Amino acid sequence: KDACIDHHRSLRTGIPEVIYGESKSAAQIVAIAKTFLQQQALFLATRIDPEKANHIRKSCPEITYHTRARMLSCNLQEPDPTRVHGNILILCAGTSDIPVAEEAKITAQALGNPVSTHYDAGVAGLHRLFSQQEAITAASVIIVVAGMEGALPSVVSGICSCPVVAVPTSIGYGTSFGGITALLGMLNSCAPGLAVVNIDNGFGAACHASAINRK
Amino acid sequence: KDACIDHHRSLRTGIPEVIYGESKSAAQIVAIAKTFLQQQALFLATRIDPEKANHIRKSCPEITYHTRARMLSCNLQEPDPTRVHGNILILCAGTSDIPVAEEAKITAQALGNPVSTHYDAGVAGLHRLFSQQEAITAASVIIVVAGMEGALPSVVSGICSCPVVAVPTSIGYGTSFGGITALLGMLNSCAPGLAVVNIDNGFGAACHASAINRK
Amino acid sequence: KDACIDHHRSLRTGIPEVIYGESKSAAQIVAIAKTFLQQQALFLATRIDPEKANHIRKSCPEITYHTRARMLSCNLQEPDPTRVHGNILILCAGTSDIPVAEEAKITAQALGNPVSTHYDAGVAGLHRLFSQQEAITAASVIIVVAGMEGALPSVVSGICSCPVVAVPTSIGYGTSFGGITALLGMLNSCAPGLAVVNIDNGFGAACHASAINRK
Amino acid sequence: KDACIDHHRSLRTGIPEVIYGESKSAAQIVAIAKTFLQQQALFLATRIDPEKANHIRKSCPEITYHTRARMLSCNLQEPDPTRVHGNILILCAGTSDIPVAEEAKITAQALGNPVSTHYDAGVAGLHRLFSQQEAITAASVIIVVAGMEGALPSVVSGICSCPVVAVPTSIGYGTSFGGITALLGMLNSCAPGLAVVNIDNGFGAACHASAINRK
Amino acid sequence: KDACIDHHRSLRTGIPEVIYGESKSAAQIVAIAKTFLQQQALFLATRIDPEKANHIRKSCPEITYHTRARMLSCNLQEPDPTRVHGNILILCAGTSDIPVAEEAKITAQALGNPVSTHYDAGVAGLHRLFSQQEAITAASVIIVVAGMEGALPSVVSGICSCPVVAVPTSIGYGTSFGGITALLGMLNSCAPGLAVVNIDNGFGAACHASAINRK
Amino acid sequence: KDACIDHHRSLRTGIPEVIYGESKSAAQIVAIAKTFLQQQALFLATRIDPEKANHIRKSCPEITYHTRARMLSCNLQEPDPTRVHGNILILCAGTSDIPVAEEAKITAQALGNPVSTHYDAGVAGLHRLFSQQEAITAASVIIVVAGMEGALPSVVSGICSCPVVAVPTSIGYGTSFGGITALLGMLNSCAPGLAVVNIDNGFGAACHASAINRK
Amino acid sequence: KDACIDHHRSLRTGIPEVIYGESKSAAQIVAIAKTFLQQQALFLATRIDPEKANHIRKSCPEITYHTRARMLSCNLQEPDPTRVHGNILILCAGTSDIPVAEEAKITAQALGNPVSTHYDAGVAGLHRLFSQQEAITAASVIIVVAGMEGALPSVVSGICSCPVVAVPTSIGYGTSFGGITALLGMLNSCAPGLAVVNIDNGFGAACHASAINRK
Amino acid sequence: KDACIDHHRSLRTGIPEVIYGESKSAAQIVAIAKTFLQQQALFLATRIDPEKANHIRKSCPEITYHTRARMLSCNLQEPDPTRVHGNILILCAGTSDIPVAEEAKITAQALGNPVSTHYDAGVAGLHRLFSQQEAITAASVIIVVAGMEGALPSVVSGICSCPVVAVPTSIGYGTSFGGITALLGMLNSCAPGLAVVNIDNGFGAACHASAINRK
Ligand SMILES: Nc1ncnc2c1ncn2[C@@H]1O[C@H](COP(=O)(O)O)[C@@H](O)[C@H]1O
Ligand SMILES: Nc1ncnc2c1ncn2[C@@H]1O[C@H](COP(=O)(O)O)[C@@H](O)[C@H]1O
Ligand SMILES: Nc1ncnc2c1ncn2[C@@H]1O[C@H](COP(=O)(O)O)[C@@H](O)[C@H]1O
Ligand SMILES: Nc1ncnc2c1ncn2[C@@H]1O[C@H](COP(=O)(O)O)[C@@H](O)[C@H]1O
Ligand SMILES: [Mg+2]
Ligand SMILES: [Mg+2]
Ligand SMILES: [Mg+2]
Ligand SMILES: [Mg+2]
Ligand SMILES: [Mg+2]
Ligand SMILES: [Mg+2]
Ligand SMILES: [Mg+2]
Ligand SMILES: [Mg+2]
Repeated sequence: KDACIDHHRSLRTGIPEVIYGESKSAAQIVAIAKTFLQQQALFLATRIDPEKANHIRKSCPEITYHTRARMLSCNLQEPDPTRVHGNILILCAGTSDIPVAEEAKITAQALGNPVSTHYDAGVAGLHRLFSQQEAITAASVIIVVAGMEGALPSVVSGICSCPVVAVPTSIGYGTSFGGITALLGMLNSCAPGLAVVNIDNGFGAACHASAINRK
Repeated sequence: KDACIDHHRSLRTGIPEVIYGESKSAAQIVAIAKTFLQQQALFLATRIDPEKANHIRKSCPEITYHTRARMLSCNLQEPDPTRVHGNILILCAGTSDIPVAEEAKITAQALGNPVSTHYDAGVAGLHRLFSQQEAITAASVIIVVAGMEGALPSVVSGICSCPVVAVPTSIGYGTSFGGITALLGMLNSCAPGLAVVNIDNGFGAACHASAINRK
Repeated sequence: KDACIDHHRSLRTGIPEVIYGESKSAAQIVAIAKTFLQQQALFLATRIDPEKANHIRKSCPEITYHTRARMLSCNLQEPDPTRVHGNILILCAGTSDIPVAEEAKITAQALGNPVSTHYDAGVAGLHRLFSQQEAITAASVIIVVAGMEGALPSVVSGICSCPVVAVPTSIGYGTSFGGITALLGMLNSCAPGLAVVNIDNGFGAACHASAINRK
Repeated sequence: KDACIDHHRSLRTGIPEVIYGESKSAAQIVAIAKTFLQQQALFLATRIDPEKANHIRKSCPEITYHTRARMLSCNLQEPDPTRVHGNILILCAGTSDIPVAEEAKITAQALGNPVSTHYDAGVAGLHRLFSQQEAITAASVIIVVAGMEGALPSVVSGICSCPVVAVPTSIGYGTSFGGITALLGMLNSCAPGLAVVNIDNGFGAACHASAINRK
Repeated sequence: KDACIDHHRSLRTGIPEVIYGESKSAAQIVAIAKTFLQQQALFLATRIDPEKANHIRKSCPEITYHTRARMLSCNLQEPDPTRVHGNILILCAGTSDIPVAEEAKITAQALGNPVSTHYDAGVAGLHRLFSQQEAITAASVIIVVAGMEGALPSVVSGICSCPVVAVPTSIGYGTSFGGITALLGMLNSCAPGLAVVNIDNGFGAACHASAINRK
Repeated sequence: KDACIDHHRSLRTGIPEVIYGESKSAAQIVAIAKTFLQQQALFLATRIDPEKANHIRKSCPEITYHTRARMLSCNLQEPDPTRVHGNILILCAGTSDIPVAEEAKITAQALGNPVSTHYDAGVAGLHRLFSQQEAITAASVIIVVAGMEGALPSVVSGICSCPVVAVPTSIGYGTSFGGITALLGMLNSCAPGLAVVNIDNGFGAACHASAINRK
Repeated sequence: KDACIDHHRSLRTGIPEVIYGESKSAAQIVAIAKTFLQQQALFLATRIDPEKANHIRKSCPEITYHTRARMLSCNLQEPDPTRVHGNILILCAGTSDIPVAEEAKITAQALGNPVSTHYDAGVAGLHRLFSQQEAITAASVIIVVAGMEGALPSVVSGICSCPVVAVPTSIGYGTSFGGITALLGMLNSCAPGLAVVNIDNGFGAACHASAINRK
Repeated sequence: KDACIDHHRSLRTGIPEVIYGESKSAAQIVAIAKTFLQQQALFLATRIDPEKANHIRKSCPEITYHTRARMLSCNLQEPDPTRVHGNILILCAGTSDIPVAEEAKITAQALGNPVSTHYDAGVAGLHRLFSQQEAITAASVIIVVAGMEGALPSVVSGICSCPVVAVPTSIGYGTSFGGITALLGMLNSCAPGLAVVNIDNGFGAACHASAINRK
């Protein structure tokens, strides 16, 4: 037996087992999805390219494909405002970082959080960030997604008091080293209280933010 | 003028400017401390070795030195339980990781949080962790500190539903690479929702946890 | 002459020369295979993609292709229980790590060992591992295969007394660095007695385990 | 409470908890040692420099210091030949690698194994290795310790059939990178069946070898 | 003959040979200094610790030691405002980065440039930077020195039109990697037109700025 | 809204927002381009492969594609010699480095600078460089582009007095590490006053050179 | 003008300019080749894939393609035994390293040297090397090519007295890191007198060997 | 027995076993030295600091200490001009690289070679190199030693036809990475025929040069 799904994880940790799609075949994912669909449980899968999504949706037409987020979902529930502290705000530095921001958005929504977003707010033109001060002050958690503009989370952290989660992306070239430079900049930020997740891990950032936002 | 303290930071971000002591002279720190003491503001400094602490306390005897945490403090306030959601739990993998755990503890307390700790709970003998399941379930945030036993945060994350912040430490030898291996293991953990701070950054973990715990 | 097979290796080391297929052409492998088939000796080749396997099997139809393990074999012998101490258990963290686990399985069987496997036993849901305690206690060697869940071998090592061989895999993204993070975590494990092989080297782990299991 | 010793580890894994001395104070080690001495259990500590050893032996004179291995021990038992398969052979490439080899030797003996050693057997003069062929053939496990001569384990592996455990050391300069080059060479060896432990980890190699040698 | 000073370099490149003091003995530096003093040429040496400076000044009392910059100088000339375009502004992120900023200042002044400085202007409190907008607009070149706050040069670059030279410093801990993280952040900045020099190389930044400012 | 163009950047920094094309779709770039064309503002985009260029030019035929530079441009203005100090000289080490040199050339011209170039002037045959001494002396800034011949900027710096900007390229194999070796060599050059930009960043070098050359 | 061939290099250094084909188009190479053919000078190009070779040979049919070495040549001269000291021996560890060994062979022959080869002589079966002792003793220089078996040059160096040049190859997987592990092992060899060239640089090794062998 | 000297190495390889002194105690070196002195064989030891040298010379007063080279020697023979092809030239880039150059000089002389040297010939002032053209043309091998001026070997290689051996040194700071940058620059040089040894390995360069120079 190839997969041994941890169907109790949601009870234990508040977050169900989510399928990492990158190195699984469409057939493997269909088999796994069916065990979720049978139980009418929330099904989420990340890192699914469009072609694989097509194959899977042929067997399981009730599954939705979120193109920009490269995710599959099924059995999404309505968010319940009495279960959360407030709103998750997602800020995104460059246009090219949007797929990672969208992965965070879909995940956070699937886990029951209201989400708002503001994209293309790079440090080279800070007025684009300052124009969002109101949304920043209102948020209960902020997720900042940045690749080439790795400095953005530091600046955000300096102007808000809620927890900030930073997601480095693999966007860039040369010494961006597939996201390592952004990651390191975020880990070394002097703006205290910033926490970081793996490169391109919009999913993980949303899980952390959701745990924070959960009442 | 060498230093230009950001005395408004507490208003803006909820966390006052904390002095990074490692590469400052005792004289520089005394000069900075005096600007805090005059305002009767919370004064905190990290990475102060015992000898430097002695020098500083000669000029400013009202300052306390926390030996295990290698920190200085002054004007600590009583925690106000109505301002926080609950308790911060600090778990520490090995005896050698304790100084980093203590930096997190002193910082979290100074920022107004009730804190409890459990040390030496490495993965090689998991019963030592499972015996803490009650405290784990009760916590509103968990900070996990680990160097050679970098796997601990993954295991903790799998058995709790509150947000978990992982702090890698520089303890180890050979391919521990001064904490890089622990850091990388934490960033790659399959247990979703784990967020990470810089190596040995107990201070930063406490700031993030405190922002989470603040009402 | 391109290849100069070490046909005495089995006598000297108990393990025959096994062909590394990745950077050899189908023609080169056919030429080498024929020298084994003529001697009716055990023939094994690793890292053979399906297309190359097809080409080779056209010239040498007596060769078997193991799809999941990406291996070729011929002249496999029946295992002889009087030559081994016991059973080799292969544990595998994630579904995506299975090809490496299968390479270990086919190799260990070809070298005369009884093998059992348990797949998808990641650290984020430890009950999946603890349910195997009996098989773990019964094994004479355990091979643990893990990529994103690099912590698994530490946990296994803490609950068994037989030798454990860890195989990091290249599965993951971002800071998994093609398996380096898993490798480093395994080398730094506090669970003593863990030994490690190269990333994705299921073949090498099986050779080491087989030498341990040989009477 | 700083330490929380895993006194059951020996039952679970066959190897007692061994104290990592490098980042513990003499006082911390004395406190831990006393819990072992009270139970008359085997006490072992690694990475103890002579000065720290002196301090500790003032409080606990029944403890022995092994200078070359930089280890402390107490309550060593007589080896019981009916519990092991045979002899552990330790080969060491350069004179400068000897402390790591000695750490392996003391550990292996403390765990009940008969041990023999051969030092300064570098690859630049292979006759020094070939003169040991008899001891190599007789061994039930071989530990090979090497820093600047990282090629030695590959050569040994090619001339024996028992399991080989390689320990890279941090000896060397320039591109030896504190043992990384030796480690990488060992992980990439074409001699199948070599398994590797952390840089300078003579202790871990002995634990793995001892688990292999245990009946 | 140990040294072979390039006394024509000033004619060829506008910048005289400056002595790199770190790995030279006091005696070697005295010998070199005398060849400059005989010619009444500008003498500059970098990376001189206080003790070495004392030794050298015993033989050559006409030499000045700049403590914060760790530099020696002799035969400094008055700046000639007709030879430069304007003012060099040096911005420094943290108190701990000041020695590098001072190396840049002394060098730039020695090469004939008017220099102004503003220290401790980190990104976590941006108002400290914005209060300098006037000086920023007036400068003909800006040197930005930053270690833990590696994001500062990006922010500066976004609000000025003169050339900006960034100097990463080795200040920080953990994943600051002795300045590599700051360096990489600066190289990847999206704020176009930023150029970078080696870690801690205040001297080189001043040479580049001086070449820009030279009429 | 995916993009939020910083249309004031040219006023603030002298350099308009330039589109980084690598990870944007043709549709995204067309949408952005139209906001520039409407305002009749200078439009520049970098890292556009020929196929993407074709798609874009179908929607916006007024845009020009610069094949060797892999750039798009529109609304280029005539250079105004009264706004600049002089000429930018671009030196290029190897034939394979030309695309990066061309990116620098098109950018510098678009920003209003007269540009001259000399290509294939590697260090292995220095006479090819010395034959350009006149152009070198006449330049007001020099951009040196080099991959496998990373030593070129050091040599150029030693024979000129204007500012030199070095661009490492990703050309090479083995230990060239995609441009890291060239970058490191440039950062460590003993020829003082060399400043460096990211690997393959001809665009950034031209922005820095243009800021230097602007009156 | 894209290329500026150094046609005097042969006079200055004994080795003509050789074309690095990897990042040049067929058209660029044809243009360069024609300047050599006109002068009837030795033409050599490395790193040419078969398809590019076909294109080039359509324009220049007098050029020969060496498939295994991936090289082009024209105007090869007869070796003149009075110009060299003796024979160059090329040893190659694995079958997969042969293309690099062939690049060395064709280059060495083109530069006028008699060459002999012995392939597949890995360290895991040393008898395959010792059977070549006679050829090893007779050689005036030895080139050793090895990837996964990076230990081979150390062993060869220990049994011969002529200069040895080691070429690491990019063959391997996991921690072979595209040849870095082999390179590092060769640089750290305890067998004195080994010199090393870039990964996969059979061409450079042959140039060095040829300079040694030239009378 | 700690050491097992390879007294036949000189017969086999032309170079006697030379003692690596860095991690051996004075007592260990004295014991080894005595086995050489008894046989009146050439004794050489590298990496001996002055204090260790003093201790050793108290027991063995016939041993000479070479302060700048940090080497010990005894039983040096007169060079025999009939056994070598010619002269070894050692070029050294910076004053700080001299200890490595001296290690090469003493070794080469001890192995019977006439040696000449030229120090402080950095690339930033190339006339200092070109003034040595005559010595360069006359040499039979050239050793180039360079740290911060890693470009020197490329330039030398472009103006001579004898074999060139490059030695990177650990001199520098920041991104010089203890010699890695110099090493990488040398491995990637476009000047064909350059071979490289380990960082600071003057000894190894001299061994290679001596093997080349031996008749
Ligand atoms: N241990 C620490 N790790 C990371 N940041 C710190 C630490 N201690 C203080 N800080 C932050 O570092 C900044 C002080 O830098 P500086 O201006 O150099 O004193 C403040 O913004 C603090 O919030
Ligand atoms: N997957 C593998 N990983 C590591 N080594 C292997 C693998 N498959 C075969 N080998 C070894 O690689 C060597 C063959 O290399 P070659 O001469 O290039 O065929 C043999 O000594 C095998 O024992
Ligand atoms: N702090 C510094 N950083 C980088 N280069 C320096 C520094 N100080 C001096 N230099 C340069 O280093 C060279 C001196 O090297 P050396 O011959 O070893 O004295 C001169 O060319 C200086 O221009
Ligand atoms: N080739 C390039 N390298 C570095 N930065 C660039 C390049 N091309 C454009 N940019 C900058 O990248 C930013 C665009 O990022 P984005 O918002 O993702 O389009 C702009 O600020 C440009 O100035
Ligand atoms: Mg943008
Ligand atoms: Mg413990
Ligand atoms: Mg799973
Ligand atoms: Mg030896
Ligand atoms: Mg500050
Ligand atoms: Mg060229
Ligand atoms: Mg082979
Ligand atoms: Mg010099």
